[in-house]
Amino acid sequence: MPQIVVNPIENGSITSVPGFRAAGVSAGIKRRGGPDLALVVADQPSTAAAVFTTNAFKAAPVIYNQSVLSANPAGWRAVAINSGCANACTGEQGHRDAQAMAQAVADALAIRREDVMVMSTGVIGQLLPMDKILHGITLAHGQLSADIQSGHDAARAIMTTDTRPKECACEVSRGDIRLRVGGMAKGSGMIHPNMATMLSVITSDARLTPALAQRALREAVDDTFNAITVDGDTSTNDTLLLVANGSAEMPLIENAETPAYHVLLSGLRYVATELAKDIVRDGEGATHFIEVRVEGAQTRAEAKQVAMSIAKSSLVKTAIYGQDANWGRIICAVGYSGVAIDPDRVSVWLDDLELVRNGAPFNVDEGRASAILARTDIPIRVDLGLGAAAATVWTCDLTHKYVDINARYRT
Amino acid sequence: MPQIVVNPIENGSITSVPGFRAAGVSAGIKRRGGPDLALVVADQPSTAAAVFTTNAFKAAPVIYNQSVLSANPAGWRAVAINSGCANACTGEQGHRDAQAMAQAVADALAIRREDVMVMSTGVIGQLLPMDKILHGITLAHGQLSADIQSGHDAARAIMTTDTRPKECACEVSRGDIRLRVGGMAKGSGMIHPNMATMLSVITSDARLTPALAQRALREAVDDTFNAITVDGDTSTNDTLLLVANGSAEMPLIENAETPAYHVLLSGLRYVATELAKDIVRDGEGATHFIEVRVEGAQTRAEAKQVAMSIAKSSLVKTAIYGQDANWGRIICAVGYSGVAIDPDRVSVWLDDLELVRNGAPFNVDEGRASAILARTDIPIRVDLGLGAAAATVWTCDLTHKYVDINARYRT
Repeated sequence: MPQIVVNPIENGSITSVPGFRAAGVSAGIKRRGGPDLALVVADQPSTAAAVFTTNAFKAAPVIYNQSVLSANPAGWRAVAINSGCANACTGEQGHRDAQAMAQAVADALAIRREDVMVMSTGVIGQLLPMDKILHGITLAHGQLSADIQSGHDAARAIMTTDTRPKECACEVSRGDIRLRVGGMAKGSGMIHPNMATMLSVITSDARLTPALAQRALREAVDDTFNAITVDGDTSTNDTLLLVANGSAEMPLIENAETPAYHVLLSGLRYVATELAKDIVRDGEGATHFIEVRVEGAQTRAEAKQVAMSIAKSSLVKTAIYGQDANWGRIICAVGYSGVAIDPDRVSVWLDDLELVRNGAPFNVDEGRASAILARTDIPIRVDLGLGAAAATVWTCDLTHKYVDINARYRT
Repeated sequence: MPQIVVNPIENGSITSVPGFRAAGVSAGIKRRGGPDLALVVADQPSTAAAVFTTNAFKAAPVIYNQSVLSANPAGWRAVAINSGCANACTGEQGHRDAQAMAQAVADALAIRREDVMVMSTGVIGQLLPMDKILHGITLAHGQLSADIQSGHDAARAIMTTDTRPKECACEVSRGDIRLRVGGMAKGSGMIHPNMATMLSVITSDARLTPALAQRALREAVDDTFNAITVDGDTSTNDTLLLVANGSAEMPLIENAETPAYHVLLSGLRYVATELAKDIVRDGEGATHFIEVRVEGAQTRAEAKQVAMSIAKSSLVKTAIYGQDANWGRIICAVGYSGVAIDPDRVSVWLDDLELVRNGAPFNVDEGRASAILARTDIPIRVDLGLGAAAATVWTCDLTHKYVDINARYRT
């Protein structure tokens, strides 16, 4: 049986996929200046799928996109994204503004408003500066291009407290099936995705039905965007959008049991994993990237619950920042995770260094622990000793700079 | 019907209750020196009740106390408490050490080991330095006194990252029923009690059965120690102990429907509230004390869940530290709390300043907001607009100093 092969595309972006154009411009929305409006356009009607925040306070663009997606899942043409203002908790005017933003894109491209989505990210509770938004859309429309650079420009324009753009693309193949997946994401704080992360757009040339696109996206999200946390806060604007224009030479994916579906899923997982990990690496103030793997659980859900309990612990995160092998805090977070465990079966490793064996301290080589903690990437592994299920989540450390950034975000 | 009157006792402590003696000494357990061993003794066998951590990793003294309490709830005589080492995750040796610590107290006082409890707080995963513990018990036994100062000494000896002792006492009366309640607590980080807080001892001269003591303690805990959070981490050692020596002139409390039960409950609530709020005020690195009150919920449990979601949000806590009226983060935490809410009915106040009305921004006077946020005490109030239930929780801000303290706790 032919293998599925995932080939990363160096310097890839959303425009590494044929049939997509993009732009990123400075529209004056961000107080401090810089690129703040991105436009991504498909040359032909495309299948769309999305997952949105589970926060009860959904921002106006989230509610707008949900209605567009349910009415028109196969005619997608464009998304406009601004940073600097989240258009969340903005009442009726917020809904009108989201619609007007989409209408402006539709007018510029001579398409229908229902073929256009919009996303916003930034401060909650402020109205969109519509004159700047409309001006930005005009500017971005004039700069639309299929070049790789235009994808990079878009990725940069959606950043808020991010220190660098997050982009990734790959080509996936199996026998004569060959397709591409490209993606960009933003997110640095208020990151604890639940069904999606802050903002991300994934492009593909796969041919598939809306139902299968939605299914593939959900399957890919659980181990990727839904396996990261920066600060435990689930945003009001989280949106992950997959758009597939069907330009690849391949059979239409209508069934999840087909090889083509698994080719797409492999590409989606690759891109979503890279973007999700990039978000954590660029977590607000982060100095360490922490991978928490929990094994030996009775179910995957329980493994993930324990892993998230560790990954969300302020005490674990500050200990890693301080390069302190304070495994007592890891054990403590396992203990209050809410999952039924047997303390006497729990073992903990820092990379390959055993810290706890069967619930009691192992004779730890503090010198080796310090050497591991001096690295940027910190792997923590916990074995619950109860079963065969496992899960991995990613987080970052909690630092002085996180407090800096968030104590003066609006000022 | 006579009223229940609670009279705070100025400069009160656990030894404000007749029949209790205490001591606090320096036994050399803490690396940095200072008082680190406390002893509290009842002159006669006393009724005991306790609530313990729900963490699956229970420290050795927690497990020891649970067995002592269930076998001997009416013969309590003494508790020894050390700071500097938690005796948690210490395997079989940890259990032997907890028993040996209790035995040393029993030997010194010429009582049975099962009349003695022990508590430990400090670093997880290190064995108790038993020579120092035993020396400390001898020292403390020699200094036992019924003076108020001895209660203060004990409160100081149980501190870890606490910057000040937490103590409180009151006299409660109703008609001819008159009793006293005194308490001390420690706790500053790893504070997110679930059934109890870090360590606390409450003394009383009430006369009551073990069953009613346990019931009164549970009733008092829910709105007090279980309504605070500093960093969301539930410790392995949380223990709240109530001991009542029955020396007050009052009828035996055998029934929760009696006036005497409610007199005791009023005193317990008063002392537990003061101690719990003191723990938050002294939260690691705290510069603000935050009261989160959620009203208009359908049930009290839901009100508390929403309040805890706000109180645990790193983004809300850093915003308060930065004196930023960033109500979007409050709304966001309401939205991801997991409680079903209607965004269009939610209103938010900072003290008496309305920030959000029915889910949309109110015209906020930023000058008044800044004046409120410059104070130490920050009251946040949320009305969900769904029902009549309410709950209050207390927390503190997340500051640079919290990161300082926890990035180098062991070093």
